Amino acid sequence: MDDRINLPVARIGANRKESGLSRRNFLAVSTSVAGSVVAGHAAAESLADVPPREDGADLSGHSERSRYVKISRIPEAGPGQRNVDPSDAINSKTPLDKLFGSITPSDLHYERSHSGVPDLDPAKHRLLMHGMVRKPLVFNVEDLKAMPSISRVVFIECTGNGWENWKKADENLTVQNTHGLVSTNEWTGVPLRFLIDLVGSDRGSHWMLAEGGDAAGVARSIPLTDEILDEAFVAYGQNGEPLRPAHGFPMRLIMPGFEGNLNIKWLRRLKFGDRPWMTRWETARYTQLQANGKATQFQLRMETNSVITSPSGTMVIKPGYQRIMGLAWSGHGKIAKVEISTDDARTWKQAQLNMPVLPKAQTRFQMDWNWDGKPTEIVSRSTDDKGNVQPTRKSFIGVTGTNAVFHYNAQQTWRIDETGRVTNVLD
Amino acid sequence: MDDRINLPVARIGANRKESGLSRRNFLAVSTSVAGSVVAGHAAAESLADVPPREDGADLSGHSERSRYVKISRIPEAGPGQRNVDPSDAINSKTPLDKLFGSITPSDLHYERSHSGVPDLDPAKHRLLMHGMVRKPLVFNVEDLKAMPSISRVVFIECTGNGWENWKKADENLTVQNTHGLVSTNEWTGVPLRFLIDLVGSDRGSHWMLAEGGDAAGVARSIPLTDEILDEAFVAYGQNGEPLRPAHGFPMRLIMPGFEGNLNIKWLRRLKFGDRPWMTRWETARYTQLQANGKATQFQLRMETNSVITSPSGTMVIKPGYQRIMGLAWSGHGKIAKVEISTDDARTWKQAQLNMPVLPKAQTRFQMDWNWDGKPTEIVSRSTDDKGNVQPTRKSFIGVTGTNAVFHYNAQQTWRIDETGRVTNVLD
Repeated sequence: MDDRINLPVARIGANRKESGLSRRNFLAVSTSVAGSVVAGHAAAESLADVPPREDGADLSGHSERSRYVKISRIPEAGPGQRNVDPSDAINSKTPLDKLFGSITPSDLHYERSHSGVPDLDPAKHRLLMHGMVRKPLVFNVEDLKAMPSISRVVFIECTGNGWENWKKADENLTVQNTHGLVSTNEWTGVPLRFLIDLVGSDRGSHWMLAEGGDAAGVARSIPLTDEILDEAFVAYGQNGEPLRPAHGFPMRLIMPGFEGNLNIKWLRRLKFGDRPWMTRWETARYTQLQANGKATQFQLRMETNSVITSPSGTMVIKPGYQRIMGLAWSGHGKIAKVEISTDDARTWKQAQLNMPVLPKAQTRFQMDWNWDGKPTEIVSRSTDDKGNVQPTRKSFIGVTGTNAVFHYNAQQTWRIDETGRVTNVLD
Repeated sequence: MDDRINLPVARIGANRKESGLSRRNFLAVSTSVAGSVVAGHAAAESLADVPPREDGADLSGHSERSRYVKISRIPEAGPGQRNVDPSDAINSKTPLDKLFGSITPSDLHYERSHSGVPDLDPAKHRLLMHGMVRKPLVFNVEDLKAMPSISRVVFIECTGNGWENWKKADENLTVQNTHGLVSTNEWTGVPLRFLIDLVGSDRGSHWMLAEGGDAAGVARSIPLTDEILDEAFVAYGQNGEPLRPAHGFPMRLIMPGFEGNLNIKWLRRLKFGDRPWMTRWETARYTQLQANGKATQFQLRMETNSVITSPSGTMVIKPGYQRIMGLAWSGHGKIAKVEISTDDARTWKQAQLNMPVLPKAQTRFQMDWNWDGKPTEIVSRSTDDKGNVQPTRKSFIGVTGTNAVFHYNAQQTWRIDETGRVTNVLD
């Protein structure tokens, strides 16, 4: 109770061993170059240098965004615009270039749906568990909420994320265009293993069919590996609140590290069996056409990936101090390191990772850089704790060819020209 | 690249060593008692038991909440209602009983303001750093975004959280009423130590005045201990997006583990000096009147705390299986354990903590319980990794008396009567 802080306290700046931040670099570059963003901070002596205090609005039931903040999955008009209006689209991408930290705001988590967004009545929705089980059961969302729960901060990524850069070379793509089909939320729900134990395991049952309640009825066969049995769960919560309709309300499957389409939204049944069901989603839609013309099925895990979000496509920077920021993630586990090159992949420096680094979650990275004003290319490459290294585009295509459209995870290069304009290049 | 999952896979249920969940308890109680929530799940054989699939709405720029989800800081009408409409209030509480996991949705983070919510123009807003420094400087929010940043998931708690149960015995309080002035978000910003290094440390400067840009101009003197220099930061991001106006847009101070009012919103200046400024906020408002009539100043740290959020005040439960859920937090560090008593503090069992347990963040806990239908009382007590144990109300008042109104962290007891109705008691 008696926890008052006693003087004398530490001298300011006496102990910075834990901050891990490179003030020296920052000051060196920000004071050496005129016109940098940071050099914009002004010397000042008094409160005359800051605006007066302001009266405020009443408190309310919900804290809405500032009217000064324009942030949406609808790309802004301009040279970087390639996405159509999401109301005409099958996906709606997260504006990675406008976000901070690791958590994606719930309303900006990417959407990818095959027949739009049903707004299901939770009082009527049911989850059927049947097939090779001892006791088929039906659950509603209140049943799930009464069960043991876990929460996990994990990324979900559309398996088609990045495919445009596999095929094309539009230099005016933004990072929202190239990588906006990945987001990270805190999800809460019931472990799959717990639910399976309720219906009773069958010795021969190694596969599970998960089907969604949207009109398209996306249905995927999922192999019941130890990893999936340990980590998958049926979620009803998203960033602390009930799932939003676009993200599967009232319940969805969460499959940490695996293709977004396996994280079945509006989940209505889990069927158990001894072999995959070979739904059209796995015989046609989500197969991977190899260089030799054969198709691979059930390539399910999302790979080690990273992208620099600032500076990124269509931005314009000035010479001098830059704070390079980005995101890295891996379906294999934790990010171990991210390296950045600012000289077109000739030399690499290790970036700082923001704590905590969580498995199968997006990790923020950053690095100081002093841009000398000469044209160059910047690129990041991530390595995860299983030793997987993000490939170059060239080596990726060398292995995979150009027939496929899924699981693109090649390094993303941004070119900076002599005017500071940042463009997308396929190196 | 060749990451296809190969059969044979593990038998379902073969390996549950990592799940840490007590299926045995759950099944034992849920099948032994008729009428429990979980016993409501029904046996089923076919898809005729679940509703048909549904067409969906177009995708959009933002994923809004379901029309079926009513969730707000405005308490619902009913016997548990004690809060007035927040538009007439000085605070707006988080509905802890309706949330999941650890993250609080940004729009439901509690509000406590002294002169309403200013909606500041970020283009005009400035932060002045001056006083005992070598080079006073003014920063705008773009300056901050260009600097090295950290992100942390931490709770902020109003120092007045829970004061009503210190004084009164209204049995119809909900957990939103009793504990709703604490929330947890991921905040992103610039380390205080980095900013101090920019203006230049002065050997004698052990104190910092932080002042907000609202009309009230809340201003607090903060001692610059090693802990505060290591952990405090000036935030511009909240759960991935810019701060919301109610939470300090465009910039606020984050003081992990310390009184909410020190996390100055709409931050407009940091002044450095060799002694506290003795503002009215620390000579009148936020002093702690002791039992002996003397007032304590600068009691800044928030204490070890916990509360059961379900079942909680005004809920009605049925006999049989219950999933007890709650939240624990400590301004000293991590939660080490939470114990629960379901027999009026006679015997205690250790609750399960949801991972990851982060320092100075809310931690979700849960436990199975089989309610036999007899009147009883349930209560939780938390212990942090520094060994601090949440006190009983009696021992808390024995030490602190009843003159003060801040830093209440006594154990919260809920009574369950023979009808299953849950009420607030002051044990």
